[in-house]
Amino acid sequence: MPLQDRVLAYSQELIRRASVTPEDAGCQQWLAEKLSGLGFHCQHLRFGEVDNLWARRGTSGPLLAFAGHTDVVPPGDLQCWASPPFAPEVRDGLLFGRGAADMKSSLAAMLVAMEDFISERPAHSGSLAWLITADEEGPATNGTVKVVETLQARGEQIDWCIVGEPSSTTTVGDVIKNGRRGSLGGVLTIAGVQGHVAYPHLARNPIHQVAPALAELAAETWDSGNEFFPATSFQISNIQAGTGATNVIPGSCEVIFNFRFSTAVTAAALQQRTEAILQRHGLDYSLAWHLSGEPFLTPRGALVDAAVTAIRDTTGRDTMLSTAGGTSDGRFIAPTGAQVVELGPVNASIHKIDECTPVAELPVLAEIYLRMLRQLLP
Amino acid sequence: MPLQDRVLAYSQELIRRASVTPEDAGCQQWLAEKLSGLGFHCQHLRFGEVDNLWARRGTSGPLLAFAGHTDVVPPGDLQCWASPPFAPEVRDGLLFGRGAADMKSSLAAMLVAMEDFISERPAHSGSLAWLITADEEGPATNGTVKVVETLQARGEQIDWCIVGEPSSTTTVGDVIKNGRRGSLGGVLTIAGVQGHVAYPHLARNPIHQVAPALAELAAETWDSGNEFFPATSFQISNIQAGTGATNVIPGSCEVIFNFRFSTAVTAAALQQRTEAILQRHGLDYSLAWHLSGEPFLTPRGALVDAAVTAIRDTTGRDTMLSTAGGTSDGRFIAPTGAQVVELGPVNASIHKIDECTPVAELPVLAEIYLRMLRQLLP
Ligand SMILES: [Zn+2]
Ligand SMILES: [Zn+2]
Repeated sequence: MPLQDRVLAYSQELIRRASVTPEDAGCQQWLAEKLSGLGFHCQHLRFGEVDNLWARRGTSGPLLAFAGHTDVVPPGDLQCWASPPFAPEVRDGLLFGRGAADMKSSLAAMLVAMEDFISERPAHSGSLAWLITADEEGPATNGTVKVVETLQARGEQIDWCIVGEPSSTTTVGDVIKNGRRGSLGGVLTIAGVQGHVAYPHLARNPIHQVAPALAELAAETWDSGNEFFPATSFQISNIQAGTGATNVIPGSCEVIFNFRFSTAVTAAALQQRTEAILQRHGLDYSLAWHLSGEPFLTPRGALVDAAVTAIRDTTGRDTMLSTAGGTSDGRFIAPTGAQVVELGPVNASIHKIDECTPVAELPVLAEIYLRMLRQLLP
Repeated sequence: MPLQDRVLAYSQELIRRASVTPEDAGCQQWLAEKLSGLGFHCQHLRFGEVDNLWARRGTSGPLLAFAGHTDVVPPGDLQCWASPPFAPEVRDGLLFGRGAADMKSSLAAMLVAMEDFISERPAHSGSLAWLITADEEGPATNGTVKVVETLQARGEQIDWCIVGEPSSTTTVGDVIKNGRRGSLGGVLTIAGVQGHVAYPHLARNPIHQVAPALAELAAETWDSGNEFFPATSFQISNIQAGTGATNVIPGSCEVIFNFRFSTAVTAAALQQRTEAILQRHGLDYSLAWHLSGEPFLTPRGALVDAAVTAIRDTTGRDTMLSTAGGTSDGRFIAPTGAQVVELGPVNASIHKIDECTPVAELPVLAEIYLRMLRQLLP
């Protein structure tokens, strides 16, 4: 079957399997059968209720891994979909279905690329691997992070990692991510003294106390970013105080916030500066921190150059390197010392009703992956 | 029966009737029978689901009205009461039961006072009246406010009003209320633009926008109060934004606040100044105002003097005039031009488990009321 037919067929095979997190719905089994046929050694690594797949072809270095996920976010209201989310359908040149962009078409494109690469170059240098989880869209605690721990425990080192997340914004390959900001969350509880609004001198209003501190945190310049990263941003996602009663001064106020931070600052420094502001405002508070990912950066080098060249050779376009946007499982792989790039379909429709990807871009993505394989493992 | 036995017996009669708002449970019927026996003309005024009683003895002026309520707040967890809330019980010199302090003992004390007054002076000058509702502890929309409208429509003017609310703090008569602050509420909704915390430039965080405005509102000096009133106070009772998701910038933020304001400022001025602050901070907001009561004040004069003198003559104590604390139905009566004082039992246990009042203070309160009647209607 020609490359373009295979990548569409494989995408449809995967979309048909309703793998809403943490269900894998047979996607990894299907993938493992394909990879075994290509000479991969497949290991099913189940942690908790999560299926993960580690497949490797070759024993020498360098090790080039493709990383991604078989799980998808829930489809939402089925009535709103023009065609059922798990019955892939092509209309007007678009492939519709949950996972069409995030990220079953990337899995299909890489599978096709490896089929062609191995048939061209069965004794390629180094090793190829797949690191696949069914827990990327969920809590991400029993997925990539656990597989990486397993690999590290046995000294298996990934040198280059292509993460198939939808990195593109308008056409495939226009943007790749060569790093991500860190993510640091906080749950802040301000203790006040409950009372009646008619007797404010007997109470201490935690909303009044925290308001100027929040104003200061929101106005703070945490850094100016750097060559690779935008400035660190602070956002309050939730605030809650009061029971609905309009005559009661609440006894506490809860604030949930998040930093997306650059490599120009550290998580420890952000924590210290946040607490200094809270203390300067004299707040009686407790604060639980959660560091969900350190920032990482893969500068120009073998992997980024291979991606840039492959995109230019396939599409004629110069890609843009970006570190913007949300977290991905790359945050678990980069700290092992691997070079990591994210390169995948256009992300405009991900997590939405009628998720889709242009059919014509599927072979383009497969071609880009294939050229990267050729360049990195000659 | 001696005065002290009657006031206890009447208190118990009323407590036994489980009149949780808006239920009257026969309290007003019982009261009306007693008052009819004393020569009162009784009118049952039912508005919506609320029973109200207007009883008057005499047709000439001046008109001295006793105002109060037969309803009580719910007892809460019955398991927590040492004795059942609607089975009045005397222990250690205290009368226990829901309404023992707020305000069935006031009703009993005034009834006893009027019995003795009318027996002493059957052809007293002026008129006596009772304005009783079963909706003081609830929404207060079909209670005193409607009775007052009815009276005004037919030109019936109250000159002096004794509200039997529990005004005392340590011993009966130590504090009377000769005014109340106004109460002005606001529900403020800040419109932002929802988004992902990783893409703050595509969103507008309403919590960040409102925080400095709230800090300014909380720090504002609205007035300095005056001879009779403490300074106006602003309190935020509720704030809410976000759905719990930690990676979403919320699309809106709701803030509920309340002013307790003095006669040194007006509701209109508070509204104008609040909105000016919100506008100066460039907020996209909507704001619903609710004026639940204008401030009122009854300065020294016939009614206050009668209360002060009656308390001194009965207890030997100098009472304190106060305008502190929450709202009462006096706010509906004062605007008609009536002089209004609140004088009743100690308020320490009101609305609580094991509500109670000292048995020895029941005849003291009855005696104070009796002396006021003698002085005002010679
Ligand atoms: Zn994804
Ligand atoms: Zn009351």
